[in-house]
Amino acid sequence: MIHEKTQSLVHPNDNKIVLLILDGLGGLPHPLTGKTEMETAKLPHLDRLARLSSGGRMQVIDPGVTPGSGPAHLALFGYHPYHVEFGRGALEALGSGFDMEPRIDLAARANFATLESPGHVSSLVKDRRAGRPGDAECRRLCEKLSQRLGKEVEGCQVFILPGKEHRFTVVFRGAGLAAGLNDNDPQREGNPLIPIEAAGASSKHAARVVNAFLKRGLEILADEKTANGMLLRGFSALPQVQPFNERYGLKSGAIAAYPMYRGVAKLVGMEVLGAPKNFEEELAILKDRWRDFNFFFVHFKGTDTAGHSGLFDEKVKALQEVDAAIPAIEALEPEVLIVTGDHSTPCIHKEHSWHPVPAIIRSPLALPNPAAAFSERGLMAGDLGIFPATHLIPLALAHASKLDKFGA
Amino acid sequence: MIHEKTQSLVHPNDNKIVLLILDGLGGLPHPLTGKTEMETAKLPHLDRLARLSSGGRMQVIDPGVTPGSGPAHLALFGYHPYHVEFGRGALEALGSGFDMEPRIDLAARANFATLESPGHVSSLVKDRRAGRPGDAECRRLCEKLSQRLGKEVEGCQVFILPGKEHRFTVVFRGAGLAAGLNDNDPQREGNPLIPIEAAGASSKHAARVVNAFLKRGLEILADEKTANGMLLRGFSALPQVQPFNERYGLKSGAIAAYPMYRGVAKLVGMEVLGAPKNFEEELAILKDRWRDFNFFFVHFKGTDTAGHSGLFDEKVKALQEVDAAIPAIEALEPEVLIVTGDHSTPCIHKEHSWHPVPAIIRSPLALPNPAAAFSERGLMAGDLGIFPATHLIPLALAHASKLDKFGA
Repeated sequence: MIHEKTQSLVHPNDNKIVLLILDGLGGLPHPLTGKTEMETAKLPHLDRLARLSSGGRMQVIDPGVTPGSGPAHLALFGYHPYHVEFGRGALEALGSGFDMEPRIDLAARANFATLESPGHVSSLVKDRRAGRPGDAECRRLCEKLSQRLGKEVEGCQVFILPGKEHRFTVVFRGAGLAAGLNDNDPQREGNPLIPIEAAGASSKHAARVVNAFLKRGLEILADEKTANGMLLRGFSALPQVQPFNERYGLKSGAIAAYPMYRGVAKLVGMEVLGAPKNFEEELAILKDRWRDFNFFFVHFKGTDTAGHSGLFDEKVKALQEVDAAIPAIEALEPEVLIVTGDHSTPCIHKEHSWHPVPAIIRSPLALPNPAAAFSERGLMAGDLGIFPATHLIPLALAHASKLDKFGA
Repeated sequence: MIHEKTQSLVHPNDNKIVLLILDGLGGLPHPLTGKTEMETAKLPHLDRLARLSSGGRMQVIDPGVTPGSGPAHLALFGYHPYHVEFGRGALEALGSGFDMEPRIDLAARANFATLESPGHVSSLVKDRRAGRPGDAECRRLCEKLSQRLGKEVEGCQVFILPGKEHRFTVVFRGAGLAAGLNDNDPQREGNPLIPIEAAGASSKHAARVVNAFLKRGLEILADEKTANGMLLRGFSALPQVQPFNERYGLKSGAIAAYPMYRGVAKLVGMEVLGAPKNFEEELAILKDRWRDFNFFFVHFKGTDTAGHSGLFDEKVKALQEVDAAIPAIEALEPEVLIVTGDHSTPCIHKEHSWHPVPAIIRSPLALPNPAAAFSERGLMAGDLGIFPATHLIPLALAHASKLDKFGA
């Protein structure tokens, strides 16, 4: 609803918006000091920004709901993740950190399995999990498949992504690979592999590719004692959403060192800028491409990594690393600078959490709280209160004077 | 949704509610002092009220969405403006500050145009904008039309409201003027004017009136060189909404010096009390009619006017003018006194903005923040948080003990 209205009010201009996402930003107090990671870190630049910004905390999905990174970023970009339907295959591929391409990638979840008649595409299935091999064995099997398959199957690239135990993911890349394929997994042991068939004319090509892959794959695995079969489920392409640029009247560029975040940005139609290896390289790209876009999504991973590891001091250091880079971003003079996170990852929790994420919006029309600080509690009394993540882009557009008035 | 429930809980009583709207109330810090208009003004009475009230900030429509005055007031009265559909003609009339009457007014947007055969109702259209006359010329043409048409056309009053360049608005006033008329604008030059026809039996009278108006109007304009035609589009009456009094079990009176605000109050079925010329006269009416109603909407314009002009000191003065009048309102002893705005109009912006508007509700059941002040930041930590404008009337009813408990 909000976005249909917002869209009708969009009034594009050249003002530039930088959305700096510190992954897993929010934290919780250290049991010994009572201070959170953000409160412990020395953040002179971010604290100064907080005192000049509209501040608050952002509820990423729903109260109490801990977001995964993919849904969290969708929400940040204004797409409610409940309304974007991911097939299981696409979800697994993204979850493995694979940078799925819209339109040309078709993904399936897969199991290694044990067949009664190795090498035969209609063999009975003896063990749907191939005796649950270890992760290392799974990697070896995936590696073997990749190498022997060679560069192409029926003109398509095939990516084999190892997972936990017997689980892996297969991604087919090529033009015309529509979804609409059944699983070949009979679900019950003792039953035969199910032939893959196209649900309609548009998925005939995909069926041909997948069947060719299964035939060659089973030949390659035929000499394995247990993991000589493959079950494929949940064939799916990336969901199609209204492009971000069209929706908000922006020209957007995404800068992220981790493939997964480039993937979500690509999913909503942002242009992905390079493949930087770290934050320093990200900032170099931001500077280089400054003239070419009016919206930049910049992703910083270090805060989340430290949170997952439970390394409080590491998270403090990561925050300080970002703080030191703030003047370089300010020097570019964006009209709107937003610093927030995609979710909280408190060190004492070692996992994502549902706590609202600190957020600041710096612009000439900000309503700052002079007592604010860049922290969970330092932003509790601010212009933005607690607000849903899907409201962030409309707010950014307003601060950048890119939204017309509603009604006379 | 909230209102269906609220309505089922309404329990009328004689407690009186005053809703004092300071138009364009919210502001932003002055670049030199860092203080907003509200923070700069000396507001002893409003600050005292703030310390005795449930306080917070009101989001008028959606985050980032800047409301026009009409939609803002609808929201304040509990009608979500996205759900009240205005025809283009009615919108234009209200936008011109015209006090449209429900049920008996029919409005159309109009262009002056140049015809091939002046004076003929089926002439070809040569120039749909009559060479874009200046605003003064538009006023002259409207004046000429008004004067020559005389008092009535087919028993209806006709109002001709000048706009920018070739644009104007026509309002027909009389019983039985249903909408359901086509435009006479052929949209393309070189095509003939389209005859106005009734879409059904209920609009036959309207068609007769409008056709008579067109015939006489074209005769009057026939001696003009360029602006000798009229194109009418978007015939519409005011939208019909559930009456405010019925919805909330109130007997409501509206007091406003500006016609537009009387218009919106009338649209929702409030009784409009007089046509005061200024705030002083408004307050006199409030006192005079105190016994006759249990809900008063009182509108103060000065804050918005100063905001639009960017005159910081003027806005401060306007706020102080209201502050001085607060004891007189308190002396009437309303059970509930609400002071808020319809939107923010920061002086540094010279326009409406999307920032939440400060709001206080004084009642025996208020939960005050003793540290509050009557300002944007002085109400950030309060009982009401940030709340949608459409929740204001249900809150007012609750504070006035006019809502029953839900469930046992």
